[in-house]
Amino acid sequence: MGAFLFRQMAVLGVGLIGGSLGLAAKERGLVDEVVGYGRDPGNMRIARRKGLIDRVCRDLREAVSHADLVVLATPVGTMSLMARSVAPHLKSRTIVMDVGSVKGPILREVEGLLPRDAPFIAAHPIAGTEQWGAKAAVSNLFEGTRCILTPSPRTDRRALRKVARLWKGVGARVELMEAGLHDRVLGAVSHLPQMIAFALMNSVAEIRLEKKDGRGTESRESPREVLSYCGGGFRDMTRIASSRPEMWRDICIQNRKEIVKDIERFEKRLERIRTMIEAQDGTGLELEFQKANQARSRILA
Amino acid sequence: MGAFLFRQMAVLGVGLIGGSLGLAAKERGLVDEVVGYGRDPGNMRIARRKGLIDRVCRDLREAVSHADLVVLATPVGTMSLMARSVAPHLKSRTIVMDVGSVKGPILREVEGLLPRDAPFIAAHPIAGTEQWGAKAAVSNLFEGTRCILTPSPRTDRRALRKVARLWKGVGARVELMEAGLHDRVLGAVSHLPQMIAFALMNSVAEIRLEKKDGRGTESRESPREVLSYCGGGFRDMTRIASSRPEMWRDICIQNRKEIVKDIERFEKRLERIRTMIEAQDGTGLELEFQKANQARSRILA
Repeated sequence: MGAFLFRQMAVLGVGLIGGSLGLAAKERGLVDEVVGYGRDPGNMRIARRKGLIDRVCRDLREAVSHADLVVLATPVGTMSLMARSVAPHLKSRTIVMDVGSVKGPILREVEGLLPRDAPFIAAHPIAGTEQWGAKAAVSNLFEGTRCILTPSPRTDRRALRKVARLWKGVGARVELMEAGLHDRVLGAVSHLPQMIAFALMNSVAEIRLEKKDGRGTESRESPREVLSYCGGGFRDMTRIASSRPEMWRDICIQNRKEIVKDIERFEKRLERIRTMIEAQDGTGLELEFQKANQARSRILA
Repeated sequence: MGAFLFRQMAVLGVGLIGGSLGLAAKERGLVDEVVGYGRDPGNMRIARRKGLIDRVCRDLREAVSHADLVVLATPVGTMSLMARSVAPHLKSRTIVMDVGSVKGPILREVEGLLPRDAPFIAAHPIAGTEQWGAKAAVSNLFEGTRCILTPSPRTDRRALRKVARLWKGVGARVELMEAGLHDRVLGAVSHLPQMIAFALMNSVAEIRLEKKDGRGTESRESPREVLSYCGGGFRDMTRIASSRPEMWRDICIQNRKEIVKDIERFEKRLERIRTMIEAQDGTGLELEFQKANQARSRILA
């Protein structure tokens, strides 16, 4: 069995990312066995039934004590707690890897919590949809996507290479990036749009419109009726408003400095448009919109 | 030829909506002849080549003087000017219809500018993409979509029925709505998301990120590099940022009262999230995100 990259992978948090990684790594012969640990028995049953993991461990110690790779795949706010809990039970040379969407704070905290002989690798596979849980996991989730690894000066280079091989093995392009830069970039292109989607959904859901029928009787349009008039634009823009609340709660708090700056920068641009609309500044609006046209075709082409 | 609903339709502004209506109406035998009028010779050549119109009229008078249906399909800021220009040249009983995305101001202004014997019908086909111009026009654009007609107390009921038959003929579901309600609903579900998409695109395009390479050399991530990390969420949310600037400039100004209110309501929800992030209020954030989850599944289900 020398072909396996890892003998036993312990997935802590068998959701969309953790579950898909378990399944993908097994299918591609990269790991011999995948054990799973998670709080929700219903979710763990689904994980087992779908073959995302080979077996469920009820006990965290049992889950990690024979693993040579421990994957932290719970919401980012729990990473430190998880690292602290698994630290005493790790075999020597077991690699610990997280798959969270925020890297700087996790890297700083978790590195200090693990034993010196348990290398930590911070990873962020840029994959996923607004779906979550074991039910949403699929073996090809990482194919053609990017996985960012954010090593620190302390990072064990051999462990880094081994983890890179794992991600390449499940179909991702691996890229190294400084953790702080990762959090700034993802804050702008992922965390900000997510906040906007939540806010847009909630702002439209609170609308109540009066309407009169032919006989002058007043009634109210429910939000459902209001939204029945939305086009594809609104649907597209709020698709990710269906994303998992606990996950985004944690990302917000972990990456708060960047997200707050991103929201403020966005609000300034929106305020600029609002002011121009109030002033009926057609020329200004047209320029602002042209700029967006050009930016999109230049940048996303 | 008694089967034709209209003998000659004049389309003023042969873009995505006007051009598609011309083509769809011809293909379905609803009109005998479609003449087109527009400022851009290149666009008119495309319109002619694609058969959106049967012939190009260089002169506005010539375009409308034999028509029994005149379609105003230019950006909404030009509707009054168009109505004023065509008014002296209309045959008796010619129906004038606009297809703009704002209804209240157009209805109020245009009704007063047309001759008493030229009925005006305000229509808004909820169709279209971020594409524009004759090149984007297709004959099935209106199939399965909604077309909102916003009659006023002055509206000629026979003309209204005739126009409704035209829209049904090209595949749309026709619905009557009070013009003010239309502008409030569309402000919320269409105009607001559009402003957000423009602002999001511009706010991310202005980012310049410092990065260090392995040797500590600083360089900058261009917006293009930053955006190469965006997932499907960002792409979906900014798709409509490619929409036509002149069209949206006019919609903003015509529907300014509603759009400003919509932006303000949205900004309050986003500010709520920003404040919670700064305060690290995890419970508050989770509730806010759950609300968005629920709203989306309840409303858009």
